[in-house]
Amino acid sequence: MTLREYLAQQQRLVDSELDRLVPPETTPPETIHRAMRYSLFAGGKRIRPILCIEAARAVSPSADGVVAAACSLELIHTYSLIHDDLPALDNDDYRRGKLTNHKVFGEAMAILAGDALLTLAFQVLAGLNTTDDRKARMIAELSAASGSVGGMIGGQVADLEGEGKPPEPRLLETIHRAKTGALLRASLRLGAICAGAAGDQYAALSRFGEHVGLAFQIVDDILDVEESSEALGKTAGKDAQQGKITFPAVYGLETSRRMAAEECARAHQVLEPFGERVARLHEIADHIVRRKS
Amino acid sequence: MTLREYLAQQQRLVDSELDRLVPPETTPPETIHRAMRYSLFAGGKRIRPILCIEAARAVSPSADGVVAAACSLELIHTYSLIHDDLPALDNDDYRRGKLTNHKVFGEAMAILAGDALLTLAFQVLAGLNTTDDRKARMIAELSAASGSVGGMIGGQVADLEGEGKPPEPRLLETIHRAKTGALLRASLRLGAICAGAAGDQYAALSRFGEHVGLAFQIVDDILDVEESSEALGKTAGKDAQQGKITFPAVYGLETSRRMAAEECARAHQVLEPFGERVARLHEIADHIVRRKS
Repeated sequence: MTLREYLAQQQRLVDSELDRLVPPETTPPETIHRAMRYSLFAGGKRIRPILCIEAARAVSPSADGVVAAACSLELIHTYSLIHDDLPALDNDDYRRGKLTNHKVFGEAMAILAGDALLTLAFQVLAGLNTTDDRKARMIAELSAASGSVGGMIGGQVADLEGEGKPPEPRLLETIHRAKTGALLRASLRLGAICAGAAGDQYAALSRFGEHVGLAFQIVDDILDVEESSEALGKTAGKDAQQGKITFPAVYGLETSRRMAAEECARAHQVLEPFGERVARLHEIADHIVRRKS
Repeated sequence: MTLREYLAQQQRLVDSELDRLVPPETTPPETIHRAMRYSLFAGGKRIRPILCIEAARAVSPSADGVVAAACSLELIHTYSLIHDDLPALDNDDYRRGKLTNHKVFGEAMAILAGDALLTLAFQVLAGLNTTDDRKARMIAELSAASGSVGGMIGGQVADLEGEGKPPEPRLLETIHRAKTGALLRASLRLGAICAGAAGDQYAALSRFGEHVGLAFQIVDDILDVEESSEALGKTAGKDAQQGKITFPAVYGLETSRRMAAEECARAHQVLEPFGERVARLHEIADHIVRRKS
């Protein structure tokens, strides 16, 4: 199976589990479930859930509850996009080529739909078909990775407050480690926990997540400069317009490209102890650096 | 100790635990931690945490981690107030006699501070000093009680969508069971789980939570009609102005008062099997019906 076919297959697996986990549009109050599903099924690449599932496979051929655990990452990611797009934050009208949630359902519903997806992420983990010990560890990891101290929300705040500040390497690193890095690392960690990883396996998969996370963000920043809004499915060139601190702004495009390739090389390296079982993780790392949207 | 003294003492206990659990204002990014603390320490009555602690005492003289578990309820309650007050939702400028969060920190920070408090609630439960089994049960209960299906968020949506609709008893009940009832019942349930309650104890404390929750909401609706903004610390008379479905709107003031008293009587009744250990729960039930703000 090619990587493309494999990713499409995994996306279908994740989508069908998400469909099972999220209340149907017919469950009252209908509006919020429509709003939740609108953004959740707007064509996301499911990169976090797929990393989670692959991390589990690196450790063990079967891991109870891992697909549902993987979905909790997509629930968090989707809520953060909905809130991020709000007029008070990034004020975006388009996301993945579709109108943003508040453009369709109004601001009040978009805020509540985000809250509900965030809440559901933890409900899903608490209801997982696995041991209570693993549930508690996954919930601790996911909440920390999406929280205000070194997690996603902390990164969003630092990002907002960084607008217009001089593009300084340390600030850039702090923002991105928190804003996207923590949740990507958590994706690998949740898979590792779900599969009962030993300490050294957990550490290696965590480091893989850190390198891939950084590569992912660098490429995101580059794409915002180089690609059209049409190709990205969202407004391109917004980073520069908003005075955001980005890798191209700090290092220039060429150095940024080299840095992404270096992070990718390090990601490959930390996977060495796993051997053949992680062929797909290697491919995904390359894919993240080469993607065009 | 009088009830007043006892409540003040319990509030101090909860406040000091919240202070320990929430990142200090000096932790970066500072702004969000200031915003989180601003609303968290704005003079809340801590009724949910106190109910949680008392439910645990009804079951056992000591329950590991119950004060922190109780704080998770206040984190959820506070996040919901911050988001509820936003211009896109209730658009309130004052809460507990102080400017609302977005009035002080701006809308973007208020949205993110709410998200962070919500996330922290689950982080606190996952890190509790108790068994993993109890952690998982508490997280399942808290997430369901604050979620979109029969939980707090679902109630908020039904409430928003009910504005201007004919005041119909069934709709009123659906809204309030979800909007305030579910989290109040969860307050009792978290305490019960933390203390290792048996099935019948858990069921009785749940029912107590349901009756007290309904009484609480009826009184809230009455106060919105009868009291001044000054006494309430928030804008009075907003329910009628916004065409909300309330108990006075459906049943009139006199019947509403009688219903609150009846719910309170039922609350007392379900506590009978616990005997002397629940003297404070009886007093709190009376206090909820008699309060003036």
